[in-house]
Amino acid sequence: MIIKLEKETKESVIDAIKKMIEKEERIIVENEASDCKIIGIIGDSKDIDRNVISCMKGVIDIIDETEKYKRANRKFHPDDTIISIDEERTVGGDNLMIISGPCAVESEEQIIEIAKRVKNAGAKYLRGGVFKPRTSPYDFQGLQYEGLELLKKAREITGLKIVTEIMSTDDIELYEKEVDVIQVGSRNMQNFDLLKRLGKLNKPILLKRGLSATIEEWLMAAEYIMSEGNPNVILCERGIRTYETATRNTLDISAIPLIKKMSHLPIIVDPSHAAGIRWMIEPLSKAAVAIGADGLIIEVHNNPDKALSDGAQSVTPDMFDTIIEDIKPIATAIGRSL
Amino acid sequence: MIIKLEKETKESVIDAIKKMIEKEERIIVENEASDCKIIGIIGDSKDIDRNVISCMKGVIDIIDETEKYKRANRKFHPDDTIISIDEERTVGGDNLMIISGPCAVESEEQIIEIAKRVKNAGAKYLRGGVFKPRTSPYDFQGLQYEGLELLKKAREITGLKIVTEIMSTDDIELYEKEVDVIQVGSRNMQNFDLLKRLGKLNKPILLKRGLSATIEEWLMAAEYIMSEGNPNVILCERGIRTYETATRNTLDISAIPLIKKMSHLPIIVDPSHAAGIRWMIEPLSKAAVAIGADGLIIEVHNNPDKALSDGAQSVTPDMFDTIIEDIKPIATAIGRSL
Amino acid sequence: MIIKLEKETKESVIDAIKKMIEKEERIIVENEASDCKIIGIIGDSKDIDRNVISCMKGVIDIIDETEKYKRANRKFHPDDTIISIDEERTVGGDNLMIISGPCAVESEEQIIEIAKRVKNAGAKYLRGGVFKPRTSPYDFQGLQYEGLELLKKAREITGLKIVTEIMSTDDIELYEKEVDVIQVGSRNMQNFDLLKRLGKLNKPILLKRGLSATIEEWLMAAEYIMSEGNPNVILCERGIRTYETATRNTLDISAIPLIKKMSHLPIIVDPSHAAGIRWMIEPLSKAAVAIGADGLIIEVHNNPDKALSDGAQSVTPDMFDTIIEDIKPIATAIGRSL
Amino acid sequence: MIIKLEKETKESVIDAIKKMIEKEERIIVENEASDCKIIGIIGDSKDIDRNVISCMKGVIDIIDETEKYKRANRKFHPDDTIISIDEERTVGGDNLMIISGPCAVESEEQIIEIAKRVKNAGAKYLRGGVFKPRTSPYDFQGLQYEGLELLKKAREITGLKIVTEIMSTDDIELYEKEVDVIQVGSRNMQNFDLLKRLGKLNKPILLKRGLSATIEEWLMAAEYIMSEGNPNVILCERGIRTYETATRNTLDISAIPLIKKMSHLPIIVDPSHAAGIRWMIEPLSKAAVAIGADGLIIEVHNNPDKALSDGAQSVTPDMFDTIIEDIKPIATAIGRSL
Repeated sequence: MIIKLEKETKESVIDAIKKMIEKEERIIVENEASDCKIIGIIGDSKDIDRNVISCMKGVIDIIDETEKYKRANRKFHPDDTIISIDEERTVGGDNLMIISGPCAVESEEQIIEIAKRVKNAGAKYLRGGVFKPRTSPYDFQGLQYEGLELLKKAREITGLKIVTEIMSTDDIELYEKEVDVIQVGSRNMQNFDLLKRLGKLNKPILLKRGLSATIEEWLMAAEYIMSEGNPNVILCERGIRTYETATRNTLDISAIPLIKKMSHLPIIVDPSHAAGIRWMIEPLSKAAVAIGADGLIIEVHNNPDKALSDGAQSVTPDMFDTIIEDIKPIATAIGRSL
Repeated sequence: MIIKLEKETKESVIDAIKKMIEKEERIIVENEASDCKIIGIIGDSKDIDRNVISCMKGVIDIIDETEKYKRANRKFHPDDTIISIDEERTVGGDNLMIISGPCAVESEEQIIEIAKRVKNAGAKYLRGGVFKPRTSPYDFQGLQYEGLELLKKAREITGLKIVTEIMSTDDIELYEKEVDVIQVGSRNMQNFDLLKRLGKLNKPILLKRGLSATIEEWLMAAEYIMSEGNPNVILCERGIRTYETATRNTLDISAIPLIKKMSHLPIIVDPSHAAGIRWMIEPLSKAAVAIGADGLIIEVHNNPDKALSDGAQSVTPDMFDTIIEDIKPIATAIGRSL
Repeated sequence: MIIKLEKETKESVIDAIKKMIEKEERIIVENEASDCKIIGIIGDSKDIDRNVISCMKGVIDIIDETEKYKRANRKFHPDDTIISIDEERTVGGDNLMIISGPCAVESEEQIIEIAKRVKNAGAKYLRGGVFKPRTSPYDFQGLQYEGLELLKKAREITGLKIVTEIMSTDDIELYEKEVDVIQVGSRNMQNFDLLKRLGKLNKPILLKRGLSATIEEWLMAAEYIMSEGNPNVILCERGIRTYETATRNTLDISAIPLIKKMSHLPIIVDPSHAAGIRWMIEPLSKAAVAIGADGLIIEVHNNPDKALSDGAQSVTPDMFDTIIEDIKPIATAIGRSL
Repeated sequence: MIIKLEKETKESVIDAIKKMIEKEERIIVENEASDCKIIGIIGDSKDIDRNVISCMKGVIDIIDETEKYKRANRKFHPDDTIISIDEERTVGGDNLMIISGPCAVESEEQIIEIAKRVKNAGAKYLRGGVFKPRTSPYDFQGLQYEGLELLKKAREITGLKIVTEIMSTDDIELYEKEVDVIQVGSRNMQNFDLLKRLGKLNKPILLKRGLSATIEEWLMAAEYIMSEGNPNVILCERGIRTYETATRNTLDISAIPLIKKMSHLPIIVDPSHAAGIRWMIEPLSKAAVAIGADGLIIEVHNNPDKALSDGAQSVTPDMFDTIIEDIKPIATAIGRSL
């Protein structure tokens, strides 16, 4: 159930309504939109007296819908969420969030060189895996804590914010201190223990869609983070697993408008993992921007063919320059900027 | 095997090469590109003497690749195919092919009204099912021959070209005479008997991707048509079947750049069947144009909620006007026009 | 709506009921079960007066369910359908229908040799493709009419009934005359023109499940055949398309109990196409028999590595002997025989 | 590369071989099979001198295959792994491992009653979730530590071994002490941090297949556990995510023979999560036993319609009795027992 109230409704009225509907096993959420206030209720609301509430001063409408999630729900929070990273970076507004960098941090030289190049091209965030979730235990698992130090050095030199994936709950405190945007990988999208703990931080979380997660399961995973108190969730569509083998995954481009309809959270696109093919990053990026994605995360490597992981889907810095140039006119056409 | 020759290579040389490589069970195809001539060979080419051929006047290169299809293959036909419908309509060039109209032709009034509206908005082709492939034998199967007459009337009045699906090989002669673009539906993508017969016509064929066809199977289906002599195939991506149920199908947006890489054939997008949800047609259309699709086929109904089929995914004429307005700046941004 | 009546209900009562419920756009079906009679109604039944009907002599129950299909529906036909092929062959009863033979008929010698071997092992039906639906137009398309003659010769010599796929509506009369069980392949499961015409025959139709057909779509395809008058449909589960690439397709073993619950039609399993791997035919056959499939269709080739198609999934005659020996104790354990 | 040696090959020879092939970045594994000894090598083996090795006393064969995993690999370990739980329970041999119990532990009364019933029917293990991975944070999350105490009480009373899912690495010590078989759920199949830590225990791990994991990814997940030193992995097929919605998931029955071919690890089947439909557990169990699964894990609830989770797929104790009776003759037919 959703109760819509006039923007100027008094706190005393809201408190009175909340008192009336309070009940164990029922979750109440309160939000302010640009043109109204909202009280949302998760759980059975059969015994709530609609007549009494509808007569209260300020109540515009009572909507009887059963919603499974609330903090991530557009109905409970009509305005877009805009996450502020620092004075010059916000996510979810007119500006596109461009994250770029290698799949894995491999060396100081590598990460610094790539960081400089992608900064020049227009990226404001540096990605780079330090703990790598690899299908095989015998594959390169990342430089780990040493890699994190290299990322920090690259940040110091370039001013780029750093984005990297967390693999273990043991690293939460360290990540909270050192990392600007904490990434949850596809394989951990339903690692609820991890999600709950990240929910206790005050840090932006980049939540990648699981390999075969439905839109609803994905929003529910966001809800796990948000229900613990952290509202700063950025969703990332990275392709889903289908029968088609011509691409590594199938970019589910429809997910962007769907998420925009169902949720107020920002959503960005990872064309690198979606395609798994270098030359395809450019066209997919154009489609993502045109359809309204709030940003892109693109794998760039200074020597893709020698990359320790995901070389086939990494673009060169020169290709990255071209991609940025190619998406600009489309961004402009729909009223956004880089 | 592919033999590239200089543009001015003499016919006598080409004939000599062809004679050398001729063999039963081997298929030879000859093509002219903007900057070269090409001789392609399907089938075992182990016993062809590369040394002799490479010495012949005009031969630039011999590429030893095993290709499974040839007439639809970009390697055998480097330039984009541009299909000419009439003096003012081509498919595959700078102009987008905009096809619009109801899922099914329901009445004279309905089809004429919609045809006028979509023409005004900018469509140059009218779609409308007359033989409808319905999952259930008890659902509305279309107005059939009567419906075709109504389509013809709408064409007469508006000048729009008509696009409609063929269901039976018995109707091929009739369709050849009366229909401008013959559509092969998803369910018949591998109805090889139908494909072969359509290959004997000199008509554009709109070949929809099968519900779970791979890119390769789809191109092979095009090859069935082309190998019988009809080169006028327009591919149509309309969503694939995946586990996700939030949309009717999953639009495989990556199919567009993939097809453009692998084939020279034009490819358009059907956002209506891909999404199955009215409000989603607009964002998907924008993505399709941005990524380089050669056109769109959109279901429009003057009274979607009363439509005899697919009402939920049909837009109103007003919504269609908006879609056209919204895709224009994106088309312009990438150098195309409606 | 379903009306259940006592077994001995008089024809005059049934006629009276049918008269009462008759209406254009409403489909009525009448069936006799082992312990009752049934009148089923497809279509809107809101205006039928339940009180009047429930008072009529013999009426046991009126069930208000909206069913999408009727002739294939277990609710309208509670007893298993048993299709009689000849005096010694029935499909759907205690006996398992064992169909075996090569993917494609290749020569007289080949088909006769295989036919003898599979007959000895216990098969009662010979399969062999003569018109082959191949992904590529350049692959072997079958011996066509010549192949059919060879199948007939093999039948003459061994007494096995022949099962072969139809590709074109033009061949319907010929198949009706010459073939014992007409197969509709996966790619044509929703070739509604073909299905409707096969519905006018009085021949068993082996309807393979489409590559990504849902259970409901498959039963609806059967309904297309049955609604034209031919009740002799045998379903065949042959694996569905999923993301898993370790097998050619994924055998949907759950389809067997599901079909048994939803329909009265016999269902057999094709482990060869499901697995696409020779050694896997044996274990999949055991699972299929254990779960209650009414038969198996298995590809056998006397020289699988030289087979013109599907060699990798064809077993040798010796392996087929073993499969038959291995499934016998399981068949016995669940009260069935070969 | 795999080196096969005679059973009686001397340790000194083996040591000599190992010394010859030792190299950083190369992983060597040694195994004893019933009829030979095996040295397996993961990683590049190009520079190993085959001639020298093949001359050494005892070497039967050198097989040049590139394997991605080794400890879980049948090629490196030809005999079936049989995991010994206690004197009367082994997994992977002739006896089927029957695990049964409620989806979630709900109360002392509930778990004790169910435990007694399933023990009577023939189960030797009790399942019961105490930390529940639920899609929504607002759904019942399990009785947690209190639930574990109830499981222990049920074990004390019935003698059944307990199987329950772990959600957090923080609970590893507790689970090591208190739980007999630790379950890793589908959502955590690639939670590599968790897998690595479970690899340091000496406890059987029940590793469920991820929702859309390939067979190879699944074996690699097992390898993560095994590469840390714990060889006691039991795989569990529980259905994969496909387009088909008639069942909750699609039981991939082919996974059982595939795993048996590729690995020596035991594999059991979870028909409850695969089907998601109560009446389907029985037929799926029969297929699983017939195809060679090493056991079953079945959800049983004394009052399924009131179950706090997964009621729709839980069978009653009476239905469980029937399932056990129905699978016995099939087990007997293939030479296995309960």
